[in-house]
Amino acid sequence: MYIAMNRFKVKDGSETDFENVWKNRDSSLSEMKGFREFHLLRGPRNEEEGYTLFASHTIWESHDDFVAWTRSQNFRDAHKNAGTNKVLYLGHPVFEGFTVVEGA
Amino acid sequence: MYIAMNRFKVKDGSETDFENVWKNRDSSLSEMKGFREFHLLRGPRNEEEGYTLFASHTIWESHDDFVAWTRSQNFRDAHKNAGTNKVLYLGHPVFEGFTVVEGA
Repeated sequence: MYIAMNRFKVKDGSETDFENVWKNRDSSLSEMKGFREFHLLRGPRNEEEGYTLFASHTIWESHDDFVAWTRSQNFRDAHKNAGTNKVLYLGHPVFEGFTVVEGA
Repeated sequence: MYIAMNRFKVKDGSETDFENVWKNRDSSLSEMKGFREFHLLRGPRNEEEGYTLFASHTIWESHDDFVAWTRSQNFRDAHKNAGTNKVLYLGHPVFEGFTVVEGA
């Protein structure tokens, strides 16, 4: 099991627009080998810096399945319009990949 | 669905000790109402600052179930020895709680 998260600092006032980008996207992740679950998560607000943390959260069977997706046409299609949404968040999305140490 | 994560910057060389703390703990989380899953996750290494990111990752039915746990004897028991492990990581653990916006 491998968890891929991408963290976005969404600017105050852009939360709904950001959520709609994800709700309205045309995803075919579920066709990929090893894909288990996808969620868009809304985290804490940072009052001082004026953003709310969001994270995409995808569970894969294995790290290899995740890597295969990043090299697929599916991945390129999913990210082709990502640049147009940059106005909604601060800086760049930060990727973090996690392997499971313990638990079930 | 609510995801509670606690992020730890584990010092280089302390990874195995940190993992063992979690593997050997006496957890009764699964007795709590609304508990779904627990995983200890190992994330990326930060070479510059000399640590590896770890995160505890707990899935609850709802935010209310999570809050009820934080007020329980179960929670106090689970954290009573937390101070002794501070030598294994940099700074304080950083808590982030997430609600689900989209996905299933």
